[in-house]
Parts: sequence; structure tokens; C-alpha cells
Amino acid sequence: MAIGAHVAYRDLVGFGRRNMDVESADLRADVIYQIGALKGLAAAAGTTVRYVKPHGALYNTIAHDERQARDVIAAIREIDASLVLVALAGSPLLGWARDAGLRVVAEAFADRAYTPNGTLVSRREPGAVLHDAEEVAARMLRLASEGVVTAIDGSSVRIEAESVCVHGDSPGAVEMARRVRALLEQSGVAIRSFVDAA
Amino acid sequence: MAIGAHVAYRDLVGFGRRNMDVESADLRADVIYQIGALKGLAAAAGTTVRYVKPHGALYNTIAHDERQARDVIAAIREIDASLVLVALAGSPLLGWARDAGLRVVAEAFADRAYTPNGTLVSRREPGAVLHDAEEVAARMLRLASEGVVTAIDGSSVRIEAESVCVHGDSPGAVEMARRVRALLEQSGVAIRSFVDAA
Amino acid sequence: MAIGAHVAYRDLVGFGRRNMDVESADLRADVIYQIGALKGLAAAAGTTVRYVKPHGALYNTIAHDERQARDVIAAIREIDASLVLVALAGSPLLGWARDAGLRVVAEAFADRAYTPNGTLVSRREPGAVLHDAEEVAARMLRLASEGVVTAIDGSSVRIEAESVCVHGDSPGAVEMARRVRALLEQSGVAIRSFVDAA
Amino acid sequence: MAIGAHVAYRDLVGFGRRNMDVESADLRADVIYQIGALKGLAAAAGTTVRYVKPHGALYNTIAHDERQARDVIAAIREIDASLVLVALAGSPLLGWARDAGLRVVAEAFADRAYTPNGTLVSRREPGAVLHDAEEVAARMLRLASEGVVTAIDGSSVRIEAESVCVHGDSPGAVEMARRVRALLEQSGVAIRSFVDAA
Repeated sequence: MAIGAHVAYRDLVGFGRRNMDVESADLRADVIYQIGALKGLAAAAGTTVRYVKPHGALYNTIAHDERQARDVIAAIREIDASLVLVALAGSPLLGWARDAGLRVVAEAFADRAYTPNGTLVSRREPGAVLHDAEEVAARMLRLASEGVVTAIDGSSVRIEAESVCVHGDSPGAVEMARRVRALLEQSGVAIRSFVDAA
Repeated sequence: MAIGAHVAYRDLVGFGRRNMDVESADLRADVIYQIGALKGLAAAAGTTVRYVKPHGALYNTIAHDERQARDVIAAIREIDASLVLVALAGSPLLGWARDAGLRVVAEAFADRAYTPNGTLVSRREPGAVLHDAEEVAARMLRLASEGVVTAIDGSSVRIEAESVCVHGDSPGAVEMARRVRALLEQSGVAIRSFVDAA
Repeated sequence: MAIGAHVAYRDLVGFGRRNMDVESADLRADVIYQIGALKGLAAAAGTTVRYVKPHGALYNTIAHDERQARDVIAAIREIDASLVLVALAGSPLLGWARDAGLRVVAEAFADRAYTPNGTLVSRREPGAVLHDAEEVAARMLRLASEGVVTAIDGSSVRIEAESVCVHGDSPGAVEMARRVRALLEQSGVAIRSFVDAA
Repeated sequence: MAIGAHVAYRDLVGFGRRNMDVESADLRADVIYQIGALKGLAAAAGTTVRYVKPHGALYNTIAHDERQARDVIAAIREIDASLVLVALAGSPLLGWARDAGLRVVAEAFADRAYTPNGTLVSRREPGAVLHDAEEVAARMLRLASEGVVTAIDGSSVRIEAESVCVHGDSPGAVEMARRVRALLEQSGVAIRSFVDAA
């Protein structure tokens, strides 16, 4: 297990899920503040923060919004350049962060459908969210072994990912995570923390 | 100059100036969170947090409330036991913190009147707050050189203090701080950061 | 059914359950603000706010703290003097509010033990909270029909109450409320909204 | 004088000046809550709320974003359909609100430059904010008497406005407001509250 800071817009009421047009100085300060606070809590618990995965609307926005992406990257570098950034597989954020010297980990979503272009199907469209744990596990095994997932139109799309996310607040999330893990391990795919592999 | 974390109750609307009956687990978490956040900002600015001075109602409460005092002490020790705690001169908090292994710095208030017992005159009483910069400077020189201040009844009271606070949000605060510093230095009293003297 | 404003200290993080030493002007403004906001929501829903029952720490504090009690009473009178105040049975708050011209409703707690003096047994003591729905229903029937409850020492204590509270966030709360209602109605005790009876 | 509710996004830290992508149900509830709270405070002070002027980012967004505009309009109608909506002169919001049955008042900005199309020059461009009280007063007199202002390119642009805003947090705001009022009154233009004229 590794501890990561899931930093978010300062929107407690909206659980960080609403886009906010935050100025760069404020966004950088918010990200540093939140990572610092978690580092303090981790130190008090005798451990350390190893990665940063932005949460909610911030995650989605910086996947493609270069201004806010560079603010988050700068904030991470300023507080601790050894932190790993977890970002959406296929997003331009991965390149911006690598260019700035951060180690990045690309992330796939177990419970989401993909378009033929490798982007996530919007939650507003039918079929965007997957609920069948067996199907999800099979998809993730194919991703891990072949590097592809079946897109929503039936085609195969290449996704380069080192991490798989199961949304923790979905019903059935624990069972889905167990199935994914079990199928991967039965099939000879080893699961390791990406920060130990650094 | 040294950077300190002025941690407070989680009461942004009241600027941390209202007493709150916070449970121990919450108070410890709040203190660690705030110190951690400032450590993060300090790291981003290339510097470090050296001391903790609780703010507002928390400062006054832990000067004598042992349960909350021990929570704040524990929180500081858990996140960084090298942090210095600044506390009210003459308060039992000093002993509790020393016993727990923290380095403490006792603080006098330049702009406040003292009772013959060495406690602060309540702000609700006349004469509690001093405004005359010359008088304040003379009082602080006497404190630095003799270890005593003139109490509100004219008697002399011993105050053991290593730091002098001028409230930054009082009108005339900057001028008062200048007068205190100037008179101390003219009289041969050297002013040093208490964290450099550690 | 009637809609009431459960006003609280401005402490969202602590769910209003932590005592706060709020100044009178702020407390009155907070109470008016919250009642006003609920009145707005009620108007938008085509209905009206009929009573005020302070929540959490504010409820307990104003049961006996005269300064804060008078602030809440004044706030209610200023925004809408027709609002009914629900208050702890046996508390001095009832008299203060009546004297100020408010209609009050005394409240008993179905799921709490009482001392021989008619006050609630502190939650920190064993037996303070009752969980057996049958026992609770029997106690409330005795309260409704005889005006007494059995205190924690076995004695009988007189409680003058017009309303019975079942804490909505307790496990089994809905079942307990059903049992209380069923037993009262089977025994010929009519349940009515206290605001319709005004 | 008339009292208006300057409702805003729920972003206290950003003073409501940051765009937020708030869902309709939340935005409507926020607007009703804030208007209701101010109605409560007004009732306690013996007066009433007469108009609504959204603040900051919400003001600018609903001037042209139809989804959020219709949410604000619906919220106002639900809590009190007699409230007047103050909106940006020339914006589509005026028509949407009128169509929904609200009375609207179009507003011009005394201290802002206009494009030849009648929109405000962005604050990011030079000359967007006017500081010369004499010039501002002369512009507002021309607006009041001829219905036009001089745009930033020197052309004349027609602005239909019934209200003039001077930003209260600008330096010199009070002096600017005095000059505008004095020049209008000297020139025979009567200033009246738009809610009295209803």
C-alpha cells in the first residue's frame, strides 16, 4: 500500500466535483496546502506520502487544460519533486508532467467504457459505467496482458496504463476490486505498488 | 526572522477567536493538519517552520486547560518534535510541554497590562490594553533587563519571558514594535530569534 | 407534519455538536440567517416554517445558559414571533422564552434515561441511551398518560412534555418511532402536530 | 434606498468571483437559501428585500449562460416572484427573465469601458476600467440623457439601462458616486429607486 494525496478544488460542499476557474496562484497554493497537510498527517502516523492523484473535477480538468495542469505540476515540484503524479491514460497531462521532470503513472478506469479514441465515454451517455465485476475483470486482464481494451463500439483500443482505478464510492466497488485482483493474479500478472517500482 | 505556525480552532468565520469544545482526536488532527500545510508552503518557498504559537482562543485555552493543552502538545510531537512551542509566560502550559519533551519559549505581551499575580488583565477591564509606544518600550526594557513589569496596581511583578509579542492587528503596531526594538538595542539588549538560540 | 428550523452553531465540520462561545450579535445573526434560509426554501416548496428547535450543542447550552438563551429568543422574535420554540422539558429556557412572549413546547427524549431530578443522564454514563424499542414505547406511554417516567435509579420523576424526540440518526430510530406511535395510538393517546394545536 | 440580495456561488474563499460549474438543483437551492437568509435579516430589521443582483462570477455567467440563467430565474420566482432582477444591460438574460415573468432592471457600469457592440471591455485589456470621476460622470449623463455611451474606439453605442453601478470596492468609489449623482441632478435627471418605480 502507498499513500497518495488526492488534492481537489477547495469546494467541500461539492466534494471537489464541480469545475472551478481558479487563478494560478490560488490553485498552486491550494495544492501545496493540501499535500502539506497530508504529509503532516502521514508523518504523525510514521509514514510518508508517495504520490499525488488529483480528485474529481480537478483530475478531469488538468487532463487537458494546460494552464491548470502546469499549476498543479509546479505545485507538486515545489513541495516535493519526488512525488509521483497519477494521471489519465492517454491525456496530454502525462507529457506536460514528464517534461517538467515529474515521474508519472498513467491510470485506466476499470469501471468505465472507452471510446474508440481511448477517451472515457461521458457519464451522461448510456453504457458509460460498467457494473459487471466479471466483465470488468476480463477487460482489465486484457489491458494488462495485451495493452488494449474493447471500446464501446466493439473495436479494440490501445491504452497505456500502469494503474487501474476502481471508484471506491461505487456500490460493489470492493467486490469488483477483488475480482480484478484475483483474475490478474490467477493469470500470472503481478500487482505491485507503482511507487515501490520507482 | 523565523516562521511559525499559528494554529487555531477550525473557525474561519470567527477568526479562531471563539472558544470551541473540540474533542481530542479532532483537535490533534486539526493541529497536525495546519502545521503540515504550513510546512508544505514553507518547503515550496525554500524554508522551514521552526515554531508553533497557537492563535486566538486556542492560545488562551491551552494556557490553563490541561486536556486541550496535552492534545496540542501531542500533535506537535507527532508531526515534528523539534518545533518550539511559544506559550503564555507564567502559564502551566509551559511545564506540561517541557515535561513532554518540547522546547518552550515563554511570551510576554508588550501592549497588555499585568495583574500583581503576573496574569494578563482581562480586556474587559479598563487599562487592559496599552497604547503609548514610549511607555510600552520602557516596560519591555525593564522586563528584559530586570525580569519584572509594573503591574496595574503599581506593584512590581516578575515575568519570565524570552519573547515579546506586539499584536499585529492593533493600530500603531508597527510603530510600537519599532520603539520597543530601538529602546532595547540602544540599551544594549540584543534581539535574536529564539529558534536560532536553540 | 410541520417544518421546523433546527438552527445550530456555525460549525459545519462538527455538525453543530461542539460548544462554541459565540458573541451575542453573531449568535443572533446566525439564528436569523438560518431560519430565514429555511423560510426561503419552505416558501419555494409552497409551505411554511412553524417552529424552531435548536440543534446539537446549541440546544443543550441554551437549556441553561441564560445569555445565549436570550440571544436565541430575541433572534426568533425578531424574524417571526409566531414561531414555536421547542426546548428541553424542565429547563429554565422554557420560562425565559415564555416571559419573552414566545410559545414554547417542552420536549422529552424517548431514547434517553432520566435522573431522579428530571434531567437527562449524561451520555458518558452507562445506561444513558436506551435501545429497546418496547421499553422505550412503554416509557413514553407512561409519560403521556401519567406525566412521569422511571428514572435511572428506579424512582418516578415528573416530566412535563408535549413532544417526544427520537434521534433520527440512531440505528433503529425508525422502528423505535413506529413502536412509540403504535403503542400510544393503541392506548388511546392521539398524536397531533403541536403547531396545529396552537 | 432599497435592499437587494447579491447572491453568489458558494465560494466564500474566492468571494464568489470564480466560475463554478454548479448543477441546476444545487444552484437553485443556493440562490433560494441566500435570498431567504437575507429576507430573514431584513425582516428582523423591519424592512424587506426588493431586488436580486447576482454577484461576481454568477452575474457574468448568467448574463449569457442560458442553463444557469434559467436556474437563477426559477429560484427567484419560487421564493418570491415580486423580486426585481438586476442584470447586465444588453444581455440575453434580460429577455429570459422577462419571458419568465420577472421584472428586470438593466444595469450599466459607470467605471467600465464598452466595446462598439455594447459589451464590457474585458478587464484584461488596457483601458477597461475608468478612474477619472469627471469623465465617468459625463459618460453617465450622456447615457441618461441620450441613451448612448462612447465606446473604447470612440464610436457611440446605444445602452439601454435603468441603473448605474459603481463598484463599491474600487478606490475612489464614494467620490465617483458623488460626482455621478451631482452631475445628473444638476442636469435635471432625477434619481429614484427602481423598486419604488415598479
